Formats: sequence, structure tokens, C-alpha cells
Amino acid sequence: MIQLTILGCHSATPRENKHTTSQLLEVKGHLFLIDCGEGTQIQLRKTKVKFSRIQHIFISHLHGDHFYGLIGLISTFRLLGRTSPLTIYGPIGIKEIITLQLKHAKSWTNYPLLFHELSSKTSEVIFEDKSIRIETLPLDHRIYTNGFLFSTVTTKRKINANKLTPFNLKPFQFQQLQEGESIILDDGKVLENEVYTIDPEGLKRYAYCSDTAYFEPLIPLIKEVDLLYHESTFLEINSELAKKTKHSTALQAATIANKAMVKKLILGHFSNRYPDKKIFIEEASKVYENVILAEDLKTFSI
Amino acid sequence: MIQLTILGCHSATPRENKHTTSQLLEVKGHLFLIDCGEGTQIQLRKTKVKFSRIQHIFISHLHGDHFYGLIGLISTFRLLGRTSPLTIYGPIGIKEIITLQLKHAKSWTNYPLLFHELSSKTSEVIFEDKSIRIETLPLDHRIYTNGFLFSTVTTKRKINANKLTPFNLKPFQFQQLQEGESIILDDGKVLENEVYTIDPEGLKRYAYCSDTAYFEPLIPLIKEVDLLYHESTFLEINSELAKKTKHSTALQAATIANKAMVKKLILGHFSNRYPDKKIFIEEASKVYENVILAEDLKTFSI
Repeated sequence: MIQLTILGCHSATPRENKHTTSQLLEVKGHLFLIDCGEGTQIQLRKTKVKFSRIQHIFISHLHGDHFYGLIGLISTFRLLGRTSPLTIYGPIGIKEIITLQLKHAKSWTNYPLLFHELSSKTSEVIFEDKSIRIETLPLDHRIYTNGFLFSTVTTKRKINANKLTPFNLKPFQFQQLQEGESIILDDGKVLENEVYTIDPEGLKRYAYCSDTAYFEPLIPLIKEVDLLYHESTFLEINSELAKKTKHSTALQAATIANKAMVKKLILGHFSNRYPDKKIFIEEASKVYENVILAEDLKTFSI
Repeated sequence: MIQLTILGCHSATPRENKHTTSQLLEVKGHLFLIDCGEGTQIQLRKTKVKFSRIQHIFISHLHGDHFYGLIGLISTFRLLGRTSPLTIYGPIGIKEIITLQLKHAKSWTNYPLLFHELSSKTSEVIFEDKSIRIETLPLDHRIYTNGFLFSTVTTKRKINANKLTPFNLKPFQFQQLQEGESIILDDGKVLENEVYTIDPEGLKRYAYCSDTAYFEPLIPLIKEVDLLYHESTFLEINSELAKKTKHSTALQAATIANKAMVKKLILGHFSNRYPDKKIFIEEASKVYENVILAEDLKTFSI
């Protein structure tokens, strides 16, 4: 299961009860933080998660509403006596910005602080272990920006028990099949892996895409994902402004969702100019049905 | 009149309803911001002040709980279409930290952003106009830190009307006396300024002192001020910790207030370890009576 908690989903400037972008993603025991607008640490306290469980933070781009809360969170981790390593993934420049501030404060972290700076303009795997893979999703914004694709993975294939009943396999042979190998029986017969196992079930994918203009090259990268968060800063009535600032409208976000055949779409990164958020749903619904609005502190499960 | 609004008075990390240091000071039409912890712009909105009225921001030192909200506020000023200049007063390094972030965001301000970097270890005047003078108050902390002394001033002396009745002065001669000049009458008699005028009345002084260890060299600089804000991160029970981290206890802050014979003391910059803040008053009252606790969004007038 993937559990997503929206910490903030508003654009530009933080206000009381309107927090700038940050998300908490729980996947297979990992707790990932995606973007970190000013005040994220205060929002994070409301979720009651243990701060030290966050070991990887992904920053989409270096606009303030997506990372001005990062330096404060890094400092708070230090004050809380953190010892476990923290890795920051973000555009080139993020290391310099953070370390400059730590230098002037004479407050180096007492835990390992690692930076994985990004500059590729094509999608790349930036994290992978036995249960999850994380890839960048290059976006089209005013400055270098990545979305992130989180996919659960498993190396173990599922045994097709019915087909195996005629054979009297030993436990290690089941393991070999689960690990994708074919088996040679004592009588020389070969059990081909693809015949006697099936693809692992329950793989889930979550795509985070903010900030970006309408960007069709994104579509193949997020094809059929279970959940897509796509920014919709504007409505079509302000489509010129969206174009100028390289943001998306609700209709454009829904068009991406439709063309990528994703299973569910969350809209977010709302401009403060729209008091009535229902219109985002109405506009998106013209081209894509399974759409929902992000809300600060709302949780989604897939 | 000087009006002080506490935006945040807590140390270390911001929490919901416990904001890190920032203060708004209204003096003779000026609106000054002193320090700017993370989330200050959200607190500032609650005061309903017009953001563009803030033209000078004073940063005591480069620890996060005193300035991590500055870059966000600078960005918000831009988004609000500010055109009037903004001057930041703070330790050397602040310009580099802010401009590095603006550079990576490719978001230069569309208003003049000026920096007045401080490095002097003795008190200096950093702002002066016809109605107010602002001086640094060098403090003793782990990194270079200044408090700030705000004094209302007037260039016009008060006429001692009784003494002047024997003379038939012309309007311009009254003006000369108000401006501090002596007058030579037609008969050659000299009216010495100090005899025929008195000091301007109603001058007010506010001293902001955070963060600092107990620091006696501060005393002559804040002698008899109307209002002193002095940090008291700790209570005496943690005096060793205060010493180690170069902070003050409530007793030490009160001792400074007592020795400087200030008229009123506000305690602030509280550590999160003390749920009951009344003990700060009890401890301070042992050596100084007119003491009060800072509270977020509380206003004080002198």
C-alpha cells in the first residue's frame, strides 16, 4: 500500500490554513517527503509521524513555495538529536544553498546530511531497493524541475501453483522459481520460469508532477499509474497566465491524466485567486472523471 | 508612541502556536520588522498591517529561528507587486544567503532590495532620520549577534517661554532656538540656547536583546530605556545549559534590567522545555519587579 498525506497544496505564499507544497509518502516502511514549503515542519507535527523516520527528501525545484521549509527542517532534525542519515534529492544548487546557511549559523548537522543533485533532462532512477524504485519525471517549468514517480517493486515472482501440482518440487526449487529462474528436474525436463510463475501482483505507482506547463512528453512516463498528483495552479479562464508562468490549468492536468490513462487524479498547487475550488473539479471532469482535489492534511491510499 | 507587536517569542523550532522570533515595531510612522523566523509572514498577516509599509528589516544573527522566514517574506513582497525599496540590516553573510536563493529561483525582486551588512563589535548607529535613531547593541552569543536600540529623537528643542517673555523675539528667532542655535539680539546681547530652551520631551527608547549570554557591557548602552526585551531561554535550574549555549536565564535577564534601571522588562525566546511560563516571572521578580512575559501576537505600547 502507498499512503499519501498532503501537507500543503497551495501555490506562491503560505497563509494560515493554506500551506505551500509538501507531501508525505509512506511506502513499504519508507517515509518520503516530497517538497518542503515554508512551515512544512509545523504541518508535519500534526501528522504525528516520528521525524527521524524521514530519511529521503525529494525537492522538485528551487522556487520558494517548494523548498523554503527545508533548511528549517534540517535544523530541527539536528535539535531533535537525529543520528540517522538524511538524503536530499534536488536540482543542482540545493547543496550550496543549504550548506551556506549551516556555515553561517556554525551549526553543522550532527547526522550525515547527503545531497543527490539532479541535472538530467531525461527520466532517471534516483533510488532503488528491494521494494521501491523512484524515478525523476522531467517537467516543463520556468526553472529546472522534476516530478517523481514512486513504484513498488518486487523481485519475487508469484508461483502458479495449479501448473506445478504434477511435480514434487523441493523448497529451494520454489525459491528459484520465485526469483525468476527456470528449473531443470532430475529427469532433464526444464520448467520454464515464464510458464510456471506469474507477474508479481499488487505493484503500485504514484506520480507527483508539480510545477509544470502542459507537457505531453510526461504522458508515456506516467502511463496507467494508480495515482497522479498534477498541478493545476489555474483555471482555463486564466490560461494565458498559465502559459506565461509555465503552470497548468485544471483542464490541462485532466487532459494529461486522460491521455496517460491514469487510474486517479489529484489536483493541487492552487492559486490563491480562486475562492471556490469546486470549479477545478468541474473543469477537469470535462475530459477526465476520476478526479479529486488535494486538501491540506488529507490522506489518500492506493 | 512606540508600539511593539510580538509575532513570535519562542526559541529553536517553530510549532503550531509557538512561533520563533519576530517583532513588529511601529515608531513615528515607520514599521520595522525585527528578526524573521520561519512562518513570520503568516503571523504578519494576522496583524492586518500593509506589507509594503515595512521598509527596514533588522536581523540579529544568522541562527535559523531568527531569519529562516526572511527569504519567504522577500519572495512574497515580490509576488504582491511591491515597488518600494526594502533594506535588510544583518550580519555579514545575509546578502549572500538571500541572493543565492533568488539566483537559483531566477526570481530577482522587482523592487530595490538593499543590504546593510554589520560586522562592528561596538555599538553603531545604523539608521537615523528626523524622528528616530537605531543603534546596534553587540551581544554575546555563539555567533556574531546584535540587539537593536530604537530611540525616538527630535531636532527641535523646547522653548522655555517664561524666560523669553522679557524679549520681543521674531518668529525666525524662535525657530533658531528650537533648532539649537543661540541668538544675538540687536543690542548685542546673546541668548544662549541652553539657557532659553529645554531638552525635547517624550523621547522613548526600546531595546531588543536576543540572543545573548548574561552580558554586562550591554548595561550602559540600554541605561534607563523605557522598554527592554531580553531573551530568557532558560530558568536558573538550567543555568549550566544557558552558559554552554550562550543564552540567558530569567534571573540573568532581570539582573540586566535591574542594573540598567530600565522601566519595563519583557522576557521572551523561551525554550520549549518549560510548560509553565509563570516560573519565568517568579524567578525574574527576585531582582526586578516590572517584568512581563512575551506572548505571540501580544502588543505593548510605550
